[in-house]
Formats: sequence, structure tokens, C-alpha cells
Amino acid sequence: MALVVQKYGGTSVGSPERIRNVARRVVETVRAGNQVAVVVSAMSGETDALVALAREVGGEDPVPREYDVLLATGEQKTIALLAMAIQRLGQAARSFTGAQMGMRTDTAHTRARIESIDRDVLLETLRGGSVAVLAGFQGVDEAGDITTLGRGGSDTSAVAVAAALGADLCEIYTDVTGVFTSDPNVVPRARKLARVSFDEMIEMASLGAKVLQIRSVRFAMRYGVRLHVRSSFVPDEGTWVVPEDEVMERLVVSGVTYNRNEAKIRVRGVKDVPGVAARLFTPLSDQGIVVDMIIQNLSQDGTTDLTFTVPRGEYKRSLAIALRTAEELGAHVEGDTAIAKVSIVGLGMKDHAGVASRMFQILADEGINIQLISTSEIKVSVVIEERHTDTAVRALHAAFVEAGAAAPRPEV
Amino acid sequence: MALVVQKYGGTSVGSPERIRNVARRVVETVRAGNQVAVVVSAMSGETDALVALAREVGGEDPVPREYDVLLATGEQKTIALLAMAIQRLGQAARSFTGAQMGMRTDTAHTRARIESIDRDVLLETLRGGSVAVLAGFQGVDEAGDITTLGRGGSDTSAVAVAAALGADLCEIYTDVTGVFTSDPNVVPRARKLARVSFDEMIEMASLGAKVLQIRSVRFAMRYGVRLHVRSSFVPDEGTWVVPEDEVMERLVVSGVTYNRNEAKIRVRGVKDVPGVAARLFTPLSDQGIVVDMIIQNLSQDGTTDLTFTVPRGEYKRSLAIALRTAEELGAHVEGDTAIAKVSIVGLGMKDHAGVASRMFQILADEGINIQLISTSEIKVSVVIEERHTDTAVRALHAAFVEAGAAAPRPEV
Repeated sequence: MALVVQKYGGTSVGSPERIRNVARRVVETVRAGNQVAVVVSAMSGETDALVALAREVGGEDPVPREYDVLLATGEQKTIALLAMAIQRLGQAARSFTGAQMGMRTDTAHTRARIESIDRDVLLETLRGGSVAVLAGFQGVDEAGDITTLGRGGSDTSAVAVAAALGADLCEIYTDVTGVFTSDPNVVPRARKLARVSFDEMIEMASLGAKVLQIRSVRFAMRYGVRLHVRSSFVPDEGTWVVPEDEVMERLVVSGVTYNRNEAKIRVRGVKDVPGVAARLFTPLSDQGIVVDMIIQNLSQDGTTDLTFTVPRGEYKRSLAIALRTAEELGAHVEGDTAIAKVSIVGLGMKDHAGVASRMFQILADEGINIQLISTSEIKVSVVIEERHTDTAVRALHAAFVEAGAAAPRPEV
Repeated sequence: MALVVQKYGGTSVGSPERIRNVARRVVETVRAGNQVAVVVSAMSGETDALVALAREVGGEDPVPREYDVLLATGEQKTIALLAMAIQRLGQAARSFTGAQMGMRTDTAHTRARIESIDRDVLLETLRGGSVAVLAGFQGVDEAGDITTLGRGGSDTSAVAVAAALGADLCEIYTDVTGVFTSDPNVVPRARKLARVSFDEMIEMASLGAKVLQIRSVRFAMRYGVRLHVRSSFVPDEGTWVVPEDEVMERLVVSGVTYNRNEAKIRVRGVKDVPGVAARLFTPLSDQGIVVDMIIQNLSQDGTTDLTFTVPRGEYKRSLAIALRTAEELGAHVEGDTAIAKVSIVGLGMKDHAGVASRMFQILADEGINIQLISTSEIKVSVVIEERHTDTAVRALHAAFVEAGAAAPRPEV
């Protein structure tokens, strides 16, 4: 008998009919001889409706404590409905809000971090033969105040529950059939990966793949929780996210991702003296703005250029801050929102030199100019003009994934 | 400085604009120098939508535990929104779910009874200068499971909070301007009462007046909580519900009510021996059916007739039960749903004989036949054909309220 954690996203529980469908899946899993804990999101559309209501009543900046009380109702609705639907199929079930399952978090409303879970109450429920139906996305802090984990937090809830329960497996049910080598909407020949390593998945998630929330993958990696990403609408196997040593097919490039949600800010003519970068970036981080790529040009005539990217939603605020700092530094600021970040990700890069330069050549052949470059052990990202995004993604996918297939294991 | 509990019903918080309106009222009350705890219902329409969802997913008889988890989201939404709206006006506020305020109830899901409230956490909030915004209708049982108090339970929540906090006053804000001598939709000349006693209010609530939930009035009477029923849309004084000795104007009839929600069942030819009534009514109460009026005719030829009324929604079940019992007793059963109960209520009846017979005469003058009669110290109820309801109510109001006005204090 295995202990399985299943997580169903908003689309999977988006209507009464879909909730009944999820209930059938859950009951099948129980009848196959497993103990099952189910983590659910709010019904699709629900969270957006609550956010709209919060803005209408609470203004642009509603009190975070109350915002969390409001948003938490979304998942509470789903757990009650799913528990009813499961019981209607003759299988015992019991719902738990974040508070009821002892999902303790820190006090950072709207983006809280999980600290602990009351595993005993959940294990007792499972051992008693009931399905535990758990509200994702929400918890309580030390004072008993309701907190939420931020968008996509239900993935993290599911992984945290799986880790706390020592589950054999955490299934993430979603509206796609798995993790693809690229966005099928852009690259029709993108294919589903059978397995992908935690590291690759983390890079892909942070670079624009929307299938899993990055914090949840980090969490899964840290606690060794095996993830299976699959569709709630079809029964096919999805993609397994597993430790690196379980990935048989060590692809040079397992994913080509893109992200149109960044903006670029360039600060020109900065005196090249120690402490300048800190003066520029500290005010941004003080405002909670997460800077992604940072490139500093070689110094010329004692001045240098600093270019960085920020989430597009933070562009205006970031530009204003950069302008203030630049004034103090006697520098100039330029901004550009019409950019995209395109990346290739693959474990095989560790063993293969020349992947980055091959990428640059492919883009050059397409006449695409590269504005910024950033690399890590298993990815290369470039910033290009936004209008070239699809062309770039397709060309890279064709060259690295469709033609390249698996890289040969290097000789050791 | 007074401690005021305010309760706003679903219509009063039925839209973002109305929630902002309530926030303004609350802040005005604070700025007038009071400590304020606010109890709110779900936004109007919300509970009905949740009930529909429960039936769609959970079937005709959704699991009560989960039904309560679902319904409790309605009030949780309102407390978050109202707390935001209050804070937006520059006044500190803090929301509390049933669990967070320690609203402990028994375990009777969907119709739980309040056992205790954690007054300390609320008093601390009020003393700290914040408004406490409390979810009505909901609580938690010993095991931490969410419970609800049943329809209209928010009134009871408010009175319980007022009692626990030793509040000076409990204001019930609703969509009418107070308690009327009759339903203004039926009797255009019905007038608002300035004061009404707890006893009268309890009778009126149980006889069909919808302005206050009867359990809340009983609770208020037991704990001496002064209620002020008033409109959330206009600033006028409403109706005070107070102990009998504070009612100056001791009306013979302060209210003419009607109730079209009952049905009548008659069991004919029952042997008139001890234990027959118990055999008839025990199976009904075992099924949770609350029988209202019971009339037993004088025995003739050793047999008797028993007639009783039940809520119309329970009519079919009740009839089936009565048929089974009647078969055992060799008796016959007849049912009728086209009935109405019309009542007159007034403290002054204690001092005046002949009120009942005057009522019967008025109805006779209108050609209305009386089917059943039941009386208490301060009310007389009759069951008549439903089609005569409006005529009966108007005639009784004209005779007792419009013409009668205040009865003279009796000589003692």
C-alpha cells in the first residue's frame, strides 16, 4: 500500500462536474490500494474574483492580513465540495483548512513560507481509511492568523504535505499532460518529457515554464519528494520530476523556454568605482523588487554601463528608483519593455562545451540580435527583442531538441 | 464610552458599495466614542449560491460536516472585506472567523448551538482601539470542526457576542426600519413600534415576523441584552427590544402576524385511550419534525380526532409517518397545505379578558371560518384557509391596532 499525495489545480476543479471527476480519480486511487491525501486549489476564476472584490472594497492596497482571510475562502470552498463528492461515491473523506491541518507558516501575508505541518492529524485520518482533502495555498501563523503562500502556492502545499507524510509519490494534476520540451503553442513539435531532473525543472520553472511553481520543485528536491506531473483530464503517464541520477536520458537541451514578462533597464555612464552597484540595487531590493539578470559592461574611460531586468509589472517603479539613483551618480537611464528572455536548459550541458556558442550562432543565423546573456551550469539565457521570441524558440528547439535528441554519455 | 455590538445582515453587506457604507457607519460609531464589535452575515445571495453548489456536487443530502465548511466561507468573505473597508477609512480593524474568536458550539452541524465565546481575545482587540469584525452564523466544536448555527444564526451570534462582552447595546441592522405592527406589504397602515418586549418579540418571531431570529431574542432575554432593530440604509431610530418593565406603551395588540408556511394533518377516528398521542407524535419528533399546534377534539363514541400543524416543507414526510401510525391505530388521515396561521400578539392581553373572543368575532364578520385555535398569555393564533390571509390580517390590524391604540392601564 502506497501513500499518495495528489494535487489538483484550479482548472481541474473548475466546475461541479470537474470536482465530481476528481472525486472519481481519487476514489479509484484508493480502491487500487493506496492511502490518499488530496490538495486542491480554488476553483478556476474564484481567486481572480476575490482579488477583484478586494480591490473594489479595499482599494489598490488592501490590508494583507484581511486579503489572506478573503483569498483563503477559495480553497475552503473546494475542499468542502470535493469531500462531499468523494463521500457521495461511498468513500470516507474529511476536509482540512490550513488551520485544521496545522499548516504553520511565517507571518508574511500573501507570500508566507511553510514552517511545519501537523502530520499526526493527517496520518490518523489516512489510517482510519478516510481520504484527507486539504486546502492548498493557505496556512496559519503563530498567532492563528490566516496566511497565504502566493500564486501557485498549492503546488508547494502539496509537496510540503508529501514531505511531512513521507509520501511515496506526489502527483500534480494539471490541465496539460506533462512537462514539454517547449511551449506547444509556439513549437508544434515540442514533445512531452518522460523524466526531468529537479535541477532542470527548477531552471525551466524560473525561466518561464508555467507547469510547476518553482518553490514547490525546490521543496521537492530538498526533501526528495518524487513528483509526477500529469493531466487530470486524460489517464496517460505524465512527466516524472526526479533526482538527477534517475534521469536516464541525459539531454543536452531538455527545454527551450521563453518569458515575455520582463523589462530591461540600462544605466549608462556610471563611474566605475567600488560600491556603485550596491547604490543602484539596494533601493530596488528595499522595495521588494527582484532583479533577474545583471550585466556590467567593461569599463571605458573610467565609466561603465549596468543593465538589468525586472518583472514587467515592476518596470515603472524600478525605472523611477533607477532615475533617482542615476541622478545622484551623474548617470543616464534607458528602459525597454519590448524584450523577451529565451533560454535553453539541459543537464547534458554539464558535459558539453560549446552549447552556448552554438545557441548564439543559431540566433545569429536567424538575424536575431542578442542584448544580454546569462548562463549557469545547466542553462543559457539570452534577452532579445520581443518580436523575435517565437522565431528564436522554434529555431533553438529544432536545432537542439528535434535534431539533437539525446546527447551521447560522455566518456569518463 | 459604550461597548456596542452591531450586526449587519446579508442585504446590508450585499455589494462592495454596501460594505463601504457599513464601514462608514461603524467608523462613525467609533468616532462618537464607542468600542465596536461588528457581526456580519454572508453577502446576500452568497449562501443560496453555496447551497446550490453543495446540492450539485454533494447531492440532495450533502455531508453536514462539509456543508458547514462550505457555508462558513460566506461570512469569512464578508469579514475580510469589511475589515479592509474600515481600515481604508483610517480606523484599525481586525477580522475573526468563528474559530478565531473561540465561538464554541455543540457538534450539531447545520444547526449548532453556541456554548461559549473567547471574550478575552475580543476585549483585547477592542481595548487596543480596533474594531472587531466577526463572522456570524459560524463556530467550531470541541474537535475544531467548523459548525454553523442555521439560517438567521448571525442574529444569535451577535446577541451571544453582546452577552459575552457585557455590551451596553446590540444593534441589529437590517433592510427594514424596525419592528412593525404587521407586514406593511399586507397592511399599508402598519406602523413601526418604538419599543417591544422580549416576550412579544419572541411570539412575533415564532408566529411569522421575519425581522429577528427567535433564538436570538430568547438569548437576548436570558442575558438581558438590549436590542435595537434598525435600518442600515436610513439613520432613523428603529425598534428597541427590551425587558417588559421598560415598555411604556402596553398595547393590547402590538402585532398581527401571519405564517403561510405550515400544513395541517388530521387523524380521525383515533381510539380515545391513554398513549395514543405519544404513538402519533413520537415518530415525528424522532424524525426531527417540529409540530406546532396540536388540537384534540372532544371524544365521541370512544374515538377522537387529533389535528396538528407542521412546517410545509415537512408536510410529505409527516403525512407518510402519520399514515403509517394511523394504519396501526385503525384511524384515517387527511392533510391540507392551503392554510395560514394568523396571530395577534400583545403584552396588554395579560390584563384584558375577551381579546380572543373579539378576534373570533372579527373573523366571523369577514366570513372567515376558524379551523384551529391556540393561545398563550400574550397571543392568540388561529388557522384559517390560506386564501383569507390578507383579509384576516387587515381586519385584525384595523380593529386592534388602528382603532385600539394603547389600552388603558388596568386598575389594580
